[in-house]
Amino acid sequence: MKNVGSGWVEARNSRGNVGLVPEDYIEVKTILIISFVFDFTSLFRAYCMKLENCVGLFLSIILLLSVMVILCHMAVGSVYSFDEEWDDDSDDGKSTGGYGGSQADEGGTMQRGGAHSTMKLSLNKFPGFSKTPNPEVYLLTKHISKGDDRLPIYTGEVGPVWLYPQIQLDCVVADPKKGSKMYGLKSYIEYQITPNTTNRPVNHRYKHFDWLYERLVEKFACALPIPCLPDKQVTGRFEEEFIKMRMERLQGWMSRMCRHPVISNSDVFQLFLNYRDEKEWKLGKRKAEKDEIVGVKIFSNIDPELPELDPAQVEQKYEMYSQFTRSMDNSVKELLTVGHLHWKRCTGPLQKEYRQIGKAFQNLSSVFNTSAYPREYTLTEALTATGKTYEEIAEIVAGQPKKDLHFLMETTHEYKGLLGCFPDTIAVHKAAIDKVKEADHLVVMNKISQQDKLIMEKNLSTMSYALQAEMNHFHSNRIYDYNRLVQFYLEEQVKFYETIAEKLKKALGQYTTM
Amino acid sequence: MKNVGSGWVEARNSRGNVGLVPEDYIEVKTILIISFVFDFTSLFRAYCMKLENCVGLFLSIILLLSVMVILCHMAVGSVYSFDEEWDDDSDDGKSTGGYGGSQADEGGTMQRGGAHSTMKLSLNKFPGFSKTPNPEVYLLTKHISKGDDRLPIYTGEVGPVWLYPQIQLDCVVADPKKGSKMYGLKSYIEYQITPNTTNRPVNHRYKHFDWLYERLVEKFACALPIPCLPDKQVTGRFEEEFIKMRMERLQGWMSRMCRHPVISNSDVFQLFLNYRDEKEWKLGKRKAEKDEIVGVKIFSNIDPELPELDPAQVEQKYEMYSQFTRSMDNSVKELLTVGHLHWKRCTGPLQKEYRQIGKAFQNLSSVFNTSAYPREYTLTEALTATGKTYEEIAEIVAGQPKKDLHFLMETTHEYKGLLGCFPDTIAVHKAAIDKVKEADHLVVMNKISQQDKLIMEKNLSTMSYALQAEMNHFHSNRIYDYNRLVQFYLEEQVKFYETIAEKLKKALGQYTTM
Repeated sequence: MKNVGSGWVEARNSRGNVGLVPEDYIEVKTILIISFVFDFTSLFRAYCMKLENCVGLFLSIILLLSVMVILCHMAVGSVYSFDEEWDDDSDDGKSTGGYGGSQADEGGTMQRGGAHSTMKLSLNKFPGFSKTPNPEVYLLTKHISKGDDRLPIYTGEVGPVWLYPQIQLDCVVADPKKGSKMYGLKSYIEYQITPNTTNRPVNHRYKHFDWLYERLVEKFACALPIPCLPDKQVTGRFEEEFIKMRMERLQGWMSRMCRHPVISNSDVFQLFLNYRDEKEWKLGKRKAEKDEIVGVKIFSNIDPELPELDPAQVEQKYEMYSQFTRSMDNSVKELLTVGHLHWKRCTGPLQKEYRQIGKAFQNLSSVFNTSAYPREYTLTEALTATGKTYEEIAEIVAGQPKKDLHFLMETTHEYKGLLGCFPDTIAVHKAAIDKVKEADHLVVMNKISQQDKLIMEKNLSTMSYALQAEMNHFHSNRIYDYNRLVQFYLEEQVKFYETIAEKLKKALGQYTTM
Repeated sequence: MKNVGSGWVEARNSRGNVGLVPEDYIEVKTILIISFVFDFTSLFRAYCMKLENCVGLFLSIILLLSVMVILCHMAVGSVYSFDEEWDDDSDDGKSTGGYGGSQADEGGTMQRGGAHSTMKLSLNKFPGFSKTPNPEVYLLTKHISKGDDRLPIYTGEVGPVWLYPQIQLDCVVADPKKGSKMYGLKSYIEYQITPNTTNRPVNHRYKHFDWLYERLVEKFACALPIPCLPDKQVTGRFEEEFIKMRMERLQGWMSRMCRHPVISNSDVFQLFLNYRDEKEWKLGKRKAEKDEIVGVKIFSNIDPELPELDPAQVEQKYEMYSQFTRSMDNSVKELLTVGHLHWKRCTGPLQKEYRQIGKAFQNLSSVFNTSAYPREYTLTEALTATGKTYEEIAEIVAGQPKKDLHFLMETTHEYKGLLGCFPDTIAVHKAAIDKVKEADHLVVMNKISQQDKLIMEKNLSTMSYALQAEMNHFHSNRIYDYNRLVQFYLEEQVKFYETIAEKLKKALGQYTTM
């Protein structure tokens, strides 16, 4: 690796490819040694499982190898690595879209990752853009696409809306299966995804979802907030509980993507759901990775069949959406905090306490039972039943969050992720507003023509319609989701309290009325 | 104060009376300075309330006085005190039964106080006897009383039982009124007690209850566990909440005494409930204080109309009762601990948490309300209702322990007190068993005659019948109490859970079904 000046660094990735990388994108990863060893240990564990009988031999060889590798890495002082080879969730060593190459910001291409991509360039290490894509390229564009890629915006009952399909796309993520390659050295989980349109299942690994996510971010994130995938996880990836939870979250993510009229209709998303064989998948992948309508260019496809908005109206909408998404972000965070606390209370101290109440009644019953007093029986039986009832209540209380709070929390968590993407999308919008504000000055300075200024205003209006259509899509989904969610939560809560009341009534029935 | 030898000390109380006190009964009360000052402060406060306008003057005088008193006490190094003058709950300066005088154990007289008597001799400072009364005097008694004082024991369905009256005595403790004397310097609370037999109310202060308690302990505690009065309290005695709680507990204590066939029928108890005027009360008091049938002598009055039990049978019963009361003591303590924990949880973290849940829903509703999206109204209204419902639930949860757990705890607390008295009563029994075991040896040694031994065995049998009758009384009450209590608790718990379910159902009704 060497610094070639002007903020660019020539870097080599683990596959030997050399390219220019912006200096800002690079982090010195001394910590990688540890994670490298850690992954090496996983690999070693996989080996041991396969070859239990030869443990002694392999142990020596592999330990030796790993020590050599560590020493080798330590020798160079600090390690720069774009290596993904040891990460089972990552790609299989071929192209992931040129992370080793140059990442110029021309055309406002976005590279945005969630907290889940821990072993890539720092660009992708944190949610949000590292730099807000520059909307200038688009704002000055005169030609408006009228082809297949056209994204119309209509006036619906609620204001500007995307064109929604007649039948809403949906899919089922199911049947997680463990697969392996490299002679069993690498294991992974493959999910079956069945769209309602073809009813023909396709298989995808987590890394394919990740690839899709990256394509969607590149292509749409300037106009549409693309929620992150469920977090990547290094340990416990093959545990049943984890697989179940990840599948549930992938299902949630896919359903949200399916519900979006722009995303669900895109070539890359259709490819993901409908590819017929490996060849079609590989070709489609290559095509998607070469897509040039990415970043702010996506606005060129947007075609609002609505009267142009003046910049003041645009700014007013921007302010409102910005305020709303920030407030909602705080509100869902509060709900998550409270929900988390309640969950812990139910499965922790409350369960313990109801068990103790149950035990106290049962102990009292046991003691009474030793009295040798002839009229004891009814009371001791009733007290035992009461004690057992409270023990049952303890388990009901502890099991309840999984039955109701879980869904409220999962969807709210999803919204937290989605709301975390809005600031970036809104920032592009804000940058465009600021550019248009400068336009008058630029006309006076003869930097742009009056005609250019009018085009910029028209394009800003288009961007605003896109944002409005997107916010209306968001609102509509939000209302649908929270109406359904809280309703379900309350239904389950009612059942919960009624069940307890019923159980206590039954226990009460055992006492003699005096 | 001076030591006169042989374990006796000559002591002077605050009223100037001089008497002999067993050395063991005296504690060096250095801590009394603090409590003295404390009580002086209460007195000072009382003054201030009466004489708000002269605060300046009185403040100077009283502060000066109190400092003088403290210095005076400190000068003697440590303070021995039988002083009751500053304790408003205590007597008004006349006799309380000769605590300043000698306290010989002749005849097995018992002086037993609860944790409530903090300013008396150490004998009364802790529950339980300081020494187990010696049952020998009674065991060798030949004459059996057949007069008015006779306490017969019959065979009931459950075994040996006391003679129960046709109509059960009961009384209502009500209408606490503040009285004062010494020109308003001393205030006290007077309760009205109305027995169901005369329906004529009598008035008593706490100290009268305490006097009655002491008489009952002296007279009966060798045979019957006499539960302690509710704790004496120095501060906050005039606060409404405290008065209400004390009244409730005095009611509980009186009801328990009324329910006891031996206690309720005793002269001293009848005097307490039925005295017609001050003169009758004073005369009755004097007579009761001179009663000679106290301590183990009470067994002379007991007349079981049942076949004599041999010492082995007596011991077996003793073992059983001893074991039972100890086990139940542990069990009620567990119930109290668990109940206390649950109470704190309901009024503390649970209330807080439900309030937070309520707030989170309401905040979400407020945020949604700012969306300017036309289809928002139904959801925001429903979410607000949900939030308010959880806030109501918070208050219901916090208020519930007072509605149900309170009674379970109060009565269990009463039982804890009662069970705390059993070891003493049972110890007298055990001492008698041991004496009778020695009898054979004493006959051989010519210390007692064969005839004496037979009398001892007969008297032991009588003691055993008394214990059996008392245990059967205890069991019968215990079963009645716990059946009623837990039933009431469960009824209220059912209502509690049903109320919450109802409230949530109502909130649920506000959502749109989709």
